[in-house]
Amino acid sequence: MNEIRDPAEDRRLDAVRADARADTLQDGPVDPVALAAELAGEHPADIAAALDEQEPETAAAVLASLPHERRIEVLDLPDFDLSNDLIEALPGEEAVRVITAMSADRAADLFRWMEEPARSELFGRLPAETQNELNRLLSWPEHTAGSLMTTEFVTAPANWTIGDTLRHIRAIERTRETIYAIYVLDPASHKLLKAVTLRRLITGEPNQPLLSVAPSHDPITVDPLMDREDVARLILKYDLLAVPVVDERENVLGIVTVDDVMDAMIEEATEDAQKFGGMEALDEPYMEIGFLSMLKKRAGWLCVLFLGEMFTASAMQHFEGELERAIVLTLFIPLIMSSGGNSGSQATSLIIRALALHEIQLGDWWRVALRELPSGLALGAILGTLGMVRITAWQLIGLHDYGPYWMLVALTVGSALVAIVTFGSLIGSMLPFALRRLGFDPASASAPFVATFIDVTGLVIYFSVALVILHGTLL
Amino acid sequence: MNEIRDPAEDRRLDAVRADARADTLQDGPVDPVALAAELAGEHPADIAAALDEQEPETAAAVLASLPHERRIEVLDLPDFDLSNDLIEALPGEEAVRVITAMSADRAADLFRWMEEPARSELFGRLPAETQNELNRLLSWPEHTAGSLMTTEFVTAPANWTIGDTLRHIRAIERTRETIYAIYVLDPASHKLLKAVTLRRLITGEPNQPLLSVAPSHDPITVDPLMDREDVARLILKYDLLAVPVVDERENVLGIVTVDDVMDAMIEEATEDAQKFGGMEALDEPYMEIGFLSMLKKRAGWLCVLFLGEMFTASAMQHFEGELERAIVLTLFIPLIMSSGGNSGSQATSLIIRALALHEIQLGDWWRVALRELPSGLALGAILGTLGMVRITAWQLIGLHDYGPYWMLVALTVGSALVAIVTFGSLIGSMLPFALRRLGFDPASASAPFVATFIDVTGLVIYFSVALVILHGTLL
Repeated sequence: MNEIRDPAEDRRLDAVRADARADTLQDGPVDPVALAAELAGEHPADIAAALDEQEPETAAAVLASLPHERRIEVLDLPDFDLSNDLIEALPGEEAVRVITAMSADRAADLFRWMEEPARSELFGRLPAETQNELNRLLSWPEHTAGSLMTTEFVTAPANWTIGDTLRHIRAIERTRETIYAIYVLDPASHKLLKAVTLRRLITGEPNQPLLSVAPSHDPITVDPLMDREDVARLILKYDLLAVPVVDERENVLGIVTVDDVMDAMIEEATEDAQKFGGMEALDEPYMEIGFLSMLKKRAGWLCVLFLGEMFTASAMQHFEGELERAIVLTLFIPLIMSSGGNSGSQATSLIIRALALHEIQLGDWWRVALRELPSGLALGAILGTLGMVRITAWQLIGLHDYGPYWMLVALTVGSALVAIVTFGSLIGSMLPFALRRLGFDPASASAPFVATFIDVTGLVIYFSVALVILHGTLL
Repeated sequence: MNEIRDPAEDRRLDAVRADARADTLQDGPVDPVALAAELAGEHPADIAAALDEQEPETAAAVLASLPHERRIEVLDLPDFDLSNDLIEALPGEEAVRVITAMSADRAADLFRWMEEPARSELFGRLPAETQNELNRLLSWPEHTAGSLMTTEFVTAPANWTIGDTLRHIRAIERTRETIYAIYVLDPASHKLLKAVTLRRLITGEPNQPLLSVAPSHDPITVDPLMDREDVARLILKYDLLAVPVVDERENVLGIVTVDDVMDAMIEEATEDAQKFGGMEALDEPYMEIGFLSMLKKRAGWLCVLFLGEMFTASAMQHFEGELERAIVLTLFIPLIMSSGGNSGSQATSLIIRALALHEIQLGDWWRVALRELPSGLALGAILGTLGMVRITAWQLIGLHDYGPYWMLVALTVGSALVAIVTFGSLIGSMLPFALRRLGFDPASASAPFVATFIDVTGLVIYFSVALVILHGTLL
């Protein structure tokens, strides 16, 4: 990824941070009231960044000195890591006031990660209505639309006028900046009928019926148990800013907004990248995760791969007799094995990504196999030729003596490369399908996993080819 | 990635597709007018999906029969692949009408990919104003904020009231559903002063000044040359739906919206995943790219890796004497080499992702090295122990005879594993930093690239350890 930074942003943040640091380092303890006054006019995300630089106690004091509305905007930020600590540091009644004012999905997130007994203690002090709302949100499994959604959305019965609706929006007090859409409900059954954007709403006259500015198509909705990646796919496909989550009676439970989906997508991309690197996905940023937690995430797969790779030792033992007779064969073992692994890794990364983007489906495996077979043969032929040229060149220039049968050795290496690269491309492309078919995540087919799989079979292919070609000469 | 599909969506699309297919297969040629009437009430994204199933000529005819506004909504969809073909199929004056009505960023995309001479011919027929607007958009380099932005945004001078602004929004005819924010400009210099959301706008009274509902902080803006990933980062950080692009005089050139950024992010994630798999990123979906184009993207890196891996043959040749004396050493070459590659691949994927997410900066390399050194030692110790246990167990159970010096062989394998896994973790984690430092994309440090790099040094480490431990016995 390229990394052209925004110089203006960097300068602004550096200035804020330098101020904060100067306060800490030179003038002794920070004056929270002064810092709060200085920060109050900044964007909430910049306030959060400045608070991150402070000691937790100072940050809590600064937060307490901010205007109430600004305080809530800061705590509402989904990436603000300090939220939990700060809310726990607030006096009881202020914590309750803040949580009831925060957006429901952020408040639910807080309780999801808060530790006992602070969690139960604080939860018990909330108004019953907020408790029910949070319990409903917290009941949905992780990574589903239900767990991502917020319950703060605007509904209006279908018999209202545009004027009624605008008055309603003005009346409901919210700290949130954004209204994504107005969800128009059947007055009797509360079924979702239409979604009207604010843009369309203000283009109408106040006495017009609300439905007159509704689009012709039905609103796109999702089930609360839908996986967050599928929600993201729908939001992308229909270019939505938010999608309503409805139950089986078509009542709106909440909405999933595009910013929450973007955060979720980045998390998924990170998990996939780490898995493809051959490890369990980390739950925390690299620099923050504990040493032992990281070791656990990495050692598990490394040991599994090591045990798998032990079969290469077994394969080699099996061919020890051949090895002793033709030591020249060992010279090319790393070269041949790695070529199989590399071609497999290419094919796997292609297919994992194409499956994730729904470019191909499970049933397309044979179509993929029919593409990978000629690709593998062509790639194998290229590498095989390179390998034979290398051996011939070294032999003729006199850089190394591969013995009297050097031409047959070159032929062995070339043929083995064709076979192994073809095999690697095929296996590498089929593995994600097989994992999906067995109910696993196709992204578990990491590069090291594929390489290990192909290493063992690659050795067997190499020695089998050698036995055929070198029979009666070296072997 | 999990793939719980939305059954409701599938059913709806299947029905639309089945209809379309039934029209094609059973009733002879499709009646475009009838199909257009049937589709007119659907969501534009669903209309696009149905058109994708048709022959290009039929699709063009259906599109021509759709209501004008619906036609433009469909062509405005960023992922609608047929757009170019369809617009070229429209009669000249209708094509001009459609392009002037489309959103400017989508129209610019069309011309970006349209082929000559159709491109110049159509461009020449556009009104001068549209030509200028498109030329401005097309002049920005790919992957920058300028190339992503649309010029359709709403501005208002700072001396207007809320009522003035609402009247202005109602007056400007647009087919777009969404107004992301109103950009408030200095009446004289046209400098951007504030960004006001629609939500805030409608909470005020008509006779209030527009500035009275503006937030206290300055608007977040980007430079037209900012990389799209940095734009995405800003949009995420500040939870924006759109970010204004401003020139050096702080005049607004356009806005980048969250949906365009999401598309860009998915593209980047795909490119990174393919690069990490050890190949050049494809420009097209896997099933659509031509055989030769794909071969080219894959063969290049595969050959580079192969040439790199040839050094393993040179290293082996160098130690051929030792190999002949101690053939038992060859048995563990694949096991040891792959362990180095796997630990390196883990470290590389971790660091690439952490750099991409700005969790760590270039200057953090020594902090990372200080984390990876103990991690590598610990992981190496685990694998080394496993390796020694394996050799001891096979020897004692009698599965294989590693000769009289089997204990020394086990010690060699164990020690080499500690050294190589530590080396792999260190090199794997430092490589992305080195590439970034040299001005390359850190994501070029693919799993196969790291593995190849470590394979060669791994062999040298292995044989060096063997020479020390087995000196005077086997060697």
